[in-house]
Amino acid sequence: MSEEQSKEHYYIGVDLGGAKILAGVFGKDLKLLGKNKIRTKPERGFDAVVGRIARCVFELADDFDIQIEQIKGLGIGTPGAIAPDGDVIFAGNLRWEDVPLKAELEEKLKIPVFIENDCNIATLGIYHKELKAVPENMVGIFLGTGVGAGLILNRQLYRGSHLTAGEIGHTVVDVHGEKCNCGNRGCFELFASRSAIFRRIDKAIQMGEKSLLATMTDGKLEDLRSGDLLKAMNRGDKCVGKVVDEAAEYTGIVVANVVNFLNPDIIVLGGGIIDALEERMMPIIERVAREHAFPGTENSFEVRASKLGDYAGITGAAVLAQQKLERKTF
Amino acid sequence: MSEEQSKEHYYIGVDLGGAKILAGVFGKDLKLLGKNKIRTKPERGFDAVVGRIARCVFELADDFDIQIEQIKGLGIGTPGAIAPDGDVIFAGNLRWEDVPLKAELEEKLKIPVFIENDCNIATLGIYHKELKAVPENMVGIFLGTGVGAGLILNRQLYRGSHLTAGEIGHTVVDVHGEKCNCGNRGCFELFASRSAIFRRIDKAIQMGEKSLLATMTDGKLEDLRSGDLLKAMNRGDKCVGKVVDEAAEYTGIVVANVVNFLNPDIIVLGGGIIDALEERMMPIIERVAREHAFPGTENSFEVRASKLGDYAGITGAAVLAQQKLERKTF
Repeated sequence: MSEEQSKEHYYIGVDLGGAKILAGVFGKDLKLLGKNKIRTKPERGFDAVVGRIARCVFELADDFDIQIEQIKGLGIGTPGAIAPDGDVIFAGNLRWEDVPLKAELEEKLKIPVFIENDCNIATLGIYHKELKAVPENMVGIFLGTGVGAGLILNRQLYRGSHLTAGEIGHTVVDVHGEKCNCGNRGCFELFASRSAIFRRIDKAIQMGEKSLLATMTDGKLEDLRSGDLLKAMNRGDKCVGKVVDEAAEYTGIVVANVVNFLNPDIIVLGGGIIDALEERMMPIIERVAREHAFPGTENSFEVRASKLGDYAGITGAAVLAQQKLERKTF
Repeated sequence: MSEEQSKEHYYIGVDLGGAKILAGVFGKDLKLLGKNKIRTKPERGFDAVVGRIARCVFELADDFDIQIEQIKGLGIGTPGAIAPDGDVIFAGNLRWEDVPLKAELEEKLKIPVFIENDCNIATLGIYHKELKAVPENMVGIFLGTGVGAGLILNRQLYRGSHLTAGEIGHTVVDVHGEKCNCGNRGCFELFASRSAIFRRIDKAIQMGEKSLLATMTDGKLEDLRSGDLLKAMNRGDKCVGKVVDEAAEYTGIVVANVVNFLNPDIIVLGGGIIDALEERMMPIIERVAREHAFPGTENSFEVRASKLGDYAGITGAAVLAQQKLERKTF
């Protein structure tokens, strides 16, 4: 380590998902200097996952010749609802309920830890790094295993009165549609999440439609990845194309609902589905959104896919830690 | 006029609608001291309407022994989109486009005038007078001739990046539903506005259903008032009851959409339809909203009908003038 580097300080951003832990080390101006990825293994329980997050961070620091003392703080985005004290109140896909994630991580890492919901944190990352904090109002919509949103209103992260804002996947767009796990009918998530897209393709195959995906796995279709959808479409799979295009159309309608209700400057799309299928989906999303925006507001907003892709979460996590420690409002 | 009263100062709030101009004079603590109502007569054109607003205000001041010099300011809520300089950009039901309402009224009245969209101003009135500015986040939803919303986020009126936020009537809840004037299918407004309710009853009558409303007018059903719906239901009109109950169900779903997306403390319903049908609709709206709220948030919000009724607009208009002149943030 050079003498100059030893004086530097860094922030760590962690994106905790049901499948993997991604950690990044960030220098000045939110520059991503390096990253590390390991499996989450949530089936081993909360203590084991905390241990694995710490391992992921220690490995990362070691690989990039950084002392733990040089790390000013760590931000972490997790699924589910987060209490102001850093307890994870509920995270379904980690099977967590009321776990003291902040306290346990600080105990293990000996650095300040700040926790935020994953969609909120990705929105924060996109807003500060990709948009340079320029728009007054921005909404991030993330199509992944599930669907969620984050809101920047008046240049600040908006969390709602009980910190549960952003459940855009469970806004109803088709009152007569099929039943959702949440109890409603026709939730947006039923059309545009990764799970929903595979489920709809599976249903089409059961109904007699032909799809290459059926030959790409011996097991459940849902074990496939978002990228497999692209592969199938590139080989001319019409069944997959139709379901993906429908997902884009519903997303366009929801973008317009957001424009009509909140009138933001920009809506940014992200998540695994968008990362894999941006080229196919974004033109449809934008066209449908402008068609459905209230007359006179068709061109009042920008809609785009995030360029940060998989790094939106770790970037936002680093922003969170930096802002908390520098006492900036955010 | 007593000597004490002559020292007092007052605010005027005006609610400008397509059919009537309602003006109120407010004293300290937003106490409504008196009101005056005249017809709008929009068919006479912009200049004539400005003259009628001035007449309504002069009559009001005279009736309550108030000198114009004692009026510190006047707030006015109008339909449509309002520019920051007080021009009305567009107000369909007044047939106005780019009219300098603020400048013309100030010229005529010689007092400071402040203009705001009608749903925003009613929300401001409810928030400050009825809710004493206690909740952090509140959404007002108004079911009248059309449907609109106003938002208080982080205790401030949220207008959106281009001042067009709140068009909740044009968020899609039934993607396969009938076509709306705005170009979309299945907008919320198609189920819950006054016009929509009468249109749906009319359609049911055309399809052979029996309704007392058919005998209550020689002309179009839409010429009837919201109160006539209540009269018919009180006489056991099942056709009207069914359409009104459906309007309440859709409203409940939209309240839940708002809860899931924005997580406010409270949603307040208002407008002519709610004023007339509160007793029948509110229990349905509340039940459906709690059923459709994201699991865990069912009891995180309050939903109620505004007690201000027809006075929400003039109250908010007085709040607007007071806050602008006292340079409070709002």
